Amino acid sequence: MERLVIPAEGIGQLSPAWRKCVGTGRMALALRADYRESLKLVQHDIGFEHIRGHGLFSHAMGILRDSEGVQRCGFTYLDEVIDSYLDLGIKPFLELGFMPHALASGEQTLFWWKANVTPPKDHGEWAALVSATVKHLISRYGLDEVRDWPIEVWNEPNLDAFWAGADMAAYFKLYATSVQAIKEVDAELQVGGPAVAPRAGEWYEKFAAFVTDQGLPCDFFSAHAYSSKPIQPFPFGVYQGFYPSEDLLEQFAIPGQVLAGTPLEHIPVHITEYNTSYDPLNPIHDTAYNAAYLAPVVANGGDLVDSFSYWTFCDVFEEQDVPTSIFHGGFGLMTIHQLRKPTYHLYAFMARMGSQILARGEDHLVTRHDDGRVTILAWQPVGDPDAVRFGELPASHQVGFEVPLPGAKAAAFIRRSVGEEAGNAWAAWRELGRPMAPSRRTMDLLREASAPAVTHGSLAIEHGQVNLDLTLGRHEVTLVEVLPVTPDHHEGLDDSRLLGHEPR
Amino acid sequence: MERLVIPAEGIGQLSPAWRKCVGTGRMALALRADYRESLKLVQHDIGFEHIRGHGLFSHAMGILRDSEGVQRCGFTYLDEVIDSYLDLGIKPFLELGFMPHALASGEQTLFWWKANVTPPKDHGEWAALVSATVKHLISRYGLDEVRDWPIEVWNEPNLDAFWAGADMAAYFKLYATSVQAIKEVDAELQVGGPAVAPRAGEWYEKFAAFVTDQGLPCDFFSAHAYSSKPIQPFPFGVYQGFYPSEDLLEQFAIPGQVLAGTPLEHIPVHITEYNTSYDPLNPIHDTAYNAAYLAPVVANGGDLVDSFSYWTFCDVFEEQDVPTSIFHGGFGLMTIHQLRKPTYHLYAFMARMGSQILARGEDHLVTRHDDGRVTILAWQPVGDPDAVRFGELPASHQVGFEVPLPGAKAAAFIRRSVGEEAGNAWAAWRELGRPMAPSRRTMDLLREASAPAVTHGSLAIEHGQVNLDLTLGRHEVTLVEVLPVTPDHHEGLDDSRLLGHEPR
Amino acid sequence: MERLVIPAEGIGQLSPAWRKCVGTGRMALALRADYRESLKLVQHDIGFEHIRGHGLFSHAMGILRDSEGVQRCGFTYLDEVIDSYLDLGIKPFLELGFMPHALASGEQTLFWWKANVTPPKDHGEWAALVSATVKHLISRYGLDEVRDWPIEVWNEPNLDAFWAGADMAAYFKLYATSVQAIKEVDAELQVGGPAVAPRAGEWYEKFAAFVTDQGLPCDFFSAHAYSSKPIQPFPFGVYQGFYPSEDLLEQFAIPGQVLAGTPLEHIPVHITEYNTSYDPLNPIHDTAYNAAYLAPVVANGGDLVDSFSYWTFCDVFEEQDVPTSIFHGGFGLMTIHQLRKPTYHLYAFMARMGSQILARGEDHLVTRHDDGRVTILAWQPVGDPDAVRFGELPASHQVGFEVPLPGAKAAAFIRRSVGEEAGNAWAAWRELGRPMAPSRRTMDLLREASAPAVTHGSLAIEHGQVNLDLTLGRHEVTLVEVLPVTPDHHEGLDDSRLLGHEPR
Amino acid sequence: MERLVIPAEGIGQLSPAWRKCVGTGRMALALRADYRESLKLVQHDIGFEHIRGHGLFSHAMGILRDSEGVQRCGFTYLDEVIDSYLDLGIKPFLELGFMPHALASGEQTLFWWKANVTPPKDHGEWAALVSATVKHLISRYGLDEVRDWPIEVWNEPNLDAFWAGADMAAYFKLYATSVQAIKEVDAELQVGGPAVAPRAGEWYEKFAAFVTDQGLPCDFFSAHAYSSKPIQPFPFGVYQGFYPSEDLLEQFAIPGQVLAGTPLEHIPVHITEYNTSYDPLNPIHDTAYNAAYLAPVVANGGDLVDSFSYWTFCDVFEEQDVPTSIFHGGFGLMTIHQLRKPTYHLYAFMARMGSQILARGEDHLVTRHDDGRVTILAWQPVGDPDAVRFGELPASHQVGFEVPLPGAKAAAFIRRSVGEEAGNAWAAWRELGRPMAPSRRTMDLLREASAPAVTHGSLAIEHGQVNLDLTLGRHEVTLVEVLPVTPDHHEGLDDSRLLGHEPR
Repeated sequence: MERLVIPAEGIGQLSPAWRKCVGTGRMALALRADYRESLKLVQHDIGFEHIRGHGLFSHAMGILRDSEGVQRCGFTYLDEVIDSYLDLGIKPFLELGFMPHALASGEQTLFWWKANVTPPKDHGEWAALVSATVKHLISRYGLDEVRDWPIEVWNEPNLDAFWAGADMAAYFKLYATSVQAIKEVDAELQVGGPAVAPRAGEWYEKFAAFVTDQGLPCDFFSAHAYSSKPIQPFPFGVYQGFYPSEDLLEQFAIPGQVLAGTPLEHIPVHITEYNTSYDPLNPIHDTAYNAAYLAPVVANGGDLVDSFSYWTFCDVFEEQDVPTSIFHGGFGLMTIHQLRKPTYHLYAFMARMGSQILARGEDHLVTRHDDGRVTILAWQPVGDPDAVRFGELPASHQVGFEVPLPGAKAAAFIRRSVGEEAGNAWAAWRELGRPMAPSRRTMDLLREASAPAVTHGSLAIEHGQVNLDLTLGRHEVTLVEVLPVTPDHHEGLDDSRLLGHEPR
Repeated sequence: MERLVIPAEGIGQLSPAWRKCVGTGRMALALRADYRESLKLVQHDIGFEHIRGHGLFSHAMGILRDSEGVQRCGFTYLDEVIDSYLDLGIKPFLELGFMPHALASGEQTLFWWKANVTPPKDHGEWAALVSATVKHLISRYGLDEVRDWPIEVWNEPNLDAFWAGADMAAYFKLYATSVQAIKEVDAELQVGGPAVAPRAGEWYEKFAAFVTDQGLPCDFFSAHAYSSKPIQPFPFGVYQGFYPSEDLLEQFAIPGQVLAGTPLEHIPVHITEYNTSYDPLNPIHDTAYNAAYLAPVVANGGDLVDSFSYWTFCDVFEEQDVPTSIFHGGFGLMTIHQLRKPTYHLYAFMARMGSQILARGEDHLVTRHDDGRVTILAWQPVGDPDAVRFGELPASHQVGFEVPLPGAKAAAFIRRSVGEEAGNAWAAWRELGRPMAPSRRTMDLLREASAPAVTHGSLAIEHGQVNLDLTLGRHEVTLVEVLPVTPDHHEGLDDSRLLGHEPR
Repeated sequence: MERLVIPAEGIGQLSPAWRKCVGTGRMALALRADYRESLKLVQHDIGFEHIRGHGLFSHAMGILRDSEGVQRCGFTYLDEVIDSYLDLGIKPFLELGFMPHALASGEQTLFWWKANVTPPKDHGEWAALVSATVKHLISRYGLDEVRDWPIEVWNEPNLDAFWAGADMAAYFKLYATSVQAIKEVDAELQVGGPAVAPRAGEWYEKFAAFVTDQGLPCDFFSAHAYSSKPIQPFPFGVYQGFYPSEDLLEQFAIPGQVLAGTPLEHIPVHITEYNTSYDPLNPIHDTAYNAAYLAPVVANGGDLVDSFSYWTFCDVFEEQDVPTSIFHGGFGLMTIHQLRKPTYHLYAFMARMGSQILARGEDHLVTRHDDGRVTILAWQPVGDPDAVRFGELPASHQVGFEVPLPGAKAAAFIRRSVGEEAGNAWAAWRELGRPMAPSRRTMDLLREASAPAVTHGSLAIEHGQVNLDLTLGRHEVTLVEVLPVTPDHHEGLDDSRLLGHEPR
Repeated sequence: MERLVIPAEGIGQLSPAWRKCVGTGRMALALRADYRESLKLVQHDIGFEHIRGHGLFSHAMGILRDSEGVQRCGFTYLDEVIDSYLDLGIKPFLELGFMPHALASGEQTLFWWKANVTPPKDHGEWAALVSATVKHLISRYGLDEVRDWPIEVWNEPNLDAFWAGADMAAYFKLYATSVQAIKEVDAELQVGGPAVAPRAGEWYEKFAAFVTDQGLPCDFFSAHAYSSKPIQPFPFGVYQGFYPSEDLLEQFAIPGQVLAGTPLEHIPVHITEYNTSYDPLNPIHDTAYNAAYLAPVVANGGDLVDSFSYWTFCDVFEEQDVPTSIFHGGFGLMTIHQLRKPTYHLYAFMARMGSQILARGEDHLVTRHDDGRVTILAWQPVGDPDAVRFGELPASHQVGFEVPLPGAKAAAFIRRSVGEEAGNAWAAWRELGRPMAPSRRTMDLLREASAPAVTHGSLAIEHGQVNLDLTLGRHEVTLVEVLPVTPDHHEGLDDSRLLGHEPR
């Protein structure tokens, strides 16, 4: 096997953009026990910095309340949600929306939970709501803390489903009202938009021009990226075709291209949602294919943007429905009750990568830690999804490395893998008959099946380096740690004598 | 002081009816973290046997689902809720309702969460839903377990708000459909009704006659009891007048009176909801008055019924609204985030009573444990609420006992008290300016203020008994444990020498 | 491959003897946090019924105390230990010993912690100590509970190191004193002996004759079994040769053979200690070899005795020393800080076996559960340890089964394996340079390496059975669950469409 | 009542010396579960910075090991202990001692656990042990971390019991050897001594002169302070007379007086042990008297020294013996199993004081927090212990304050008290017959009795201040928080209407 020679010197720092933010189901779900268990696990294994979801001003959060002609802002649930976020070491990335019934100018709603998606009937009342909310947050959490929470105005206003009529002028007015209300509270709070869905056409340029022309603050630019094609519905699910992985990276690149040369050139760009499919009932999300497909995106996205936020961290999620089956194609990195999906492990592997990039390629990312460890993320490239039917990619993929370990006398590796064979509870679930409501015993089996396979061994050092030949299975994503070893001295120890035989 | 002479022999067993069941906000709330923390605490300190609330078939539980023309029952959330109940040592008392949108014959809804309260448009579909649900529960939890869960048909059908038109014939039809569907699954499952609200008029007799005439099974009779008068609304709250405590006991007694002499004479009677006020925004629920008022009800209710279920165990509750303030008059034994209210302590005190009743009166209940301890629950009688304005009852109430401790050589007591001075976070909250959204630090102070006052001391034994003179404060409820003491021998110990002085 | 045909009908019940008891380091270690964490894990994954160790009356337990001429029994630590046992769902198997300094007739001690191994200087004082201890236990835990705790008199009196001079007459006197003291407290407490070390010669017969002749109660007969040969010391460790596995089963059989035909014929026989090596610094305990060697013992021991107690459940253990290295050859099923060894997994696999035995052989045990699952424990037979040097057994072992699944339409399996490749933290530790005091990061790697490998898949059913061909690696022990599967119906689901391709 | 007028301006910062360090039983006890539970509680409620105890090199820590002629340092237990400290947010204050058997020059031992107190037979070997230990700690925890751990050479060398012959020259040699060994590893590690027991005579001056003359580093000066008189033993306990509280402060002052004008003038002074009695079986430690006696010491000690370390944080402690009774006069701030003693609460009260001192006196300390709260610690002065027998101090003590609350419109207080009546599990234990081994139920009662009494109320503001009149009971220590209050607006709320009465 031909092996890639890894250089001893780094070629750059690994950007933290991949873990800067993660998506979540609507905010009120953060009150739930399962959600918190899931977030706790994610934070332990991955450690995202911010979390972003819809529904701050939804009915279920109970912020704007009326009684006997008196209006109040109630922050009972908001405080509980944000307390729980901070306790788990993650900060909110606030999204202003959707419209409280009391402020709505129309009846159009979205989702199972009936989010109102019409403009405010009175922009002053909207500004007052935004202002009261931000002031309350500052009073409870402190100004320094809240300044670290980006605030995004609305979600996907370029889609009629999310913003009545996809009315650009109305969105610009909402943006202006919102940013002014917030900056009046404190000029250093970070506000941005336009949070557009993919294929947004002229929204990029026009939003940039609008804020520039109006002299409005804009602290970051945000957009979404999905690589799926039209939906093919079936009962309780959809299928979709997909563009190749590169399509996502191309979408990431657009805002930077648009803003280049404008006054907004240097503001951060946040991809505040991305995934393969934008549908929460697409089984692709449950597969190892999803992880292998996204591996080059996660490995390279940080070159293009300041964050790209996987939509979403767990299947505690309600948009179209309450899930009827443990696996149902949810967006989550894990199912309800914490069966970790392959893409979860892709992220957990990323969390073990070193700070310094040694090499990158179409099927690998190689980094080094300060302590000398070299960590290799490798995957089977999936190519063009249209070209090969699911399950018909080659059964294996080879990749080899010559890894420098300067100064080491001995070495070992530990490898963790997910693919069709391991770390794939969905595959086990299929074998077990796809039970919609598994018993606790079956959940335990699936939990076992969700763990990555672990292998380990010694590596010979020659000329200051080790050779590492990896065979990956179909859809496999693997993490290999190569560790310099310094043996301890155990005088007299001789494994060949373990059964009482004479020393050789 | 004149003292009540407590007899050495018991006059009966303390009925477990007081802890047989407790009420809860709608079932979907059981998915929430705070709800579970609250229930865990309640189960540790009180230990209810069953839990009953609305909303089994609500939208938020996601049981009846449709997609692309296919209908499914999904039990994802139901399983999670019931798993959590059983894990916490409490069993469901199921209430069939309200109507899934897909089955509803009308549009009438109730509550902030829009419970549909119309009859099924097709009773066969309703029967199918009930049957599928019961079968699923049996498959997951086992038949023996589910037979121990009473199943109640609907809630308060005698009120138009809860059952369109308060249509008695329609309710009887629903009952017949439901009981038949369930008994077809298993004849030993326990089904009952009619779950009527107070002042139900002829519903009692007519329901009894209906099931008797139709030869329908009826395994228990259920009704509700509240002692409040019409509401006097103010923003985010209501006030109400109250009938005296005895009114609740009289309401408890009605079903037994009605059923006497009928074929249903010996079936259990369950008061499946009771409280002072039926309004979840009445501040009375937060007060020590509520505890003192209910003390004789809790102490005596078990003589009249097989259970009476406090509505509800915690303020994680949503009917009219999401609470805007930590104290807002919620039904709960505790607030959100577990500030225990005085009525919580009344129940926790009951949980420490012995199995054998020694004496009972208008301001006390005296019991003995198998180990010889005597436990006394005492309270200030509140009399007729109309007669004395809140806060103007006498500042103290005296009660004294001669407690038999046969065979004991020494004795001690430990007393726990709640009232205006102690175990009353609401009182402390008023002093702190009634903050709607208290900081964590303030919550800690309120938590300290929510603990009962504890005092203790030695008691002299004379003629095999001890004298116990208790002074109760305004609205006080107190629990006194009188303990026989057997001193250990510590040779040479002499507290008078603690500072090095010579023995006396 | 030739496959073993598994019968559909069971050939007997699997005896619970294998989990009836487990060994532990001296009792005072049960005060330690790591010990409790370890026991908690063992109880979760395996679930032993009793736990037996030395040191009840050791200095460190502080039971017999003197001060200023006054003697007291202090039960501070004993209560804490036994509380913790019961909290973790395990009951004590009490061993009376060793001798408190204040009662000892000589100076001879054993172990790093200086256990005095001489007879009491006054048997009345010994009887008083035993009696006071038993009475205290009954007062704290209740008579019913304590009657379920076997009480064994002393440990290995046939060895001079454990009982001065291995004096048989002195032991018989101690036994007589002890059993009389205990039976005076309560006649139904269970007392036994003689707890002899292997190769005990005439002790079996003479003890049986003694209790019979003297008319002394003897509720069980106990002995130990180890299969190791003389030690070959090296710094901080020993090597030993071993007799084949069968030797242990032969040792188990001896008490039954000796008691046959005597009045003690029907009393329970407890092997109150067993393992390969009796030395706590023999690295064999850390290996997969140990698990493969013991697999047939664990699978078959229950035919011969009522219990056989693995010595010991964890490496929190101090006899010769405080361990200087994380892996040091300790007896434990796991290391300190809970790295599970291969023998741990052997036991955890046993805990997943069904109640009904379908087949047994030299490399397998096949059982069925009530729910129809078939569980197969298989292992590589290790043969005569003298014959093959460590690490030189064949690299693989084949075994195949035809497994009946009457009535099943589909099937799946899940397999868990430990051996040289997986579930073997010791192997990974060697690769990492055998660090004596691993960093927390290295401990995390070792923890990952300690998990069994998990594989799973579908199985085709033909003629009501499935074929299962297993290839085991060197020293492998594997557990295969064969599960009947009933598929749920997901209308429209078609994995071949996952990438949006047309249905085939 | 005359009230003390508290000034609005602070008179200085409250020194953190009181929480800089706390004492502990020997290091090996930190392996125990109860110890860790206790330390967790202490750290939650009080939050000490360092922890210091004996026994680093004791047999039970297993550091210096020999086997087959090979010597090793094993850090298995040391790592576990220090990991647990750091996990609980506390750092070690290392004490070098006592002498490992293998290095000891003599046989003299101390304590139940037989600490060898003789000089090393070979100072080179001692230096090697110290050096290896420090190097291991740096390798595991990092140099920056270990530089923050003071290292003290030996303990109380001026007592023959702790250092054979109280040999000053031998101690100086040990100090020189130790400090040189450590500074060779890293010059910024902090080393000090001489850790002398009270009434140390010429040790202070001579140690200062020795290190100065020899040019040896000395990074801090340490000494102990106890105020008890000779012991009066009784079985399992002692009584002692006491000097007044001031005696402790005078002892604190000595090192500073001695070092004044010498080259060591500016090094930190650490009182590495202090308490009333130096005997771990003196019941004074369990009393509220102990707390009232020490209150002025804790309030004022920081003026004199850089730390004063209460000996010890819990009763998991073994010097003379294993405790035979739950209350036995142990040094601990709490008993085993976490019954908090009054002195615990004194420390927990201190942890709630503000950073700015407003006033101080013989019965009070008044501070202000940054948020405007004023916190008052008050106590009954106990005077000269010889003058009044235990229990015969006045039944009450009055103190009053005029507390400034500039700008506040309303105010409230919350008061926590311990004394004879509350926060005094020992008093309850006496009433319950002083059970040596309480049942779990009795422990629950004692736990309830161990909580401080809490009262609260509103305070009227006049001229920007509130009046606070406190009546303290016998031996009472009380903490009063005075809080400025800003009422929330609840439109329509009127408590006088709670029972439905008309508004007044």
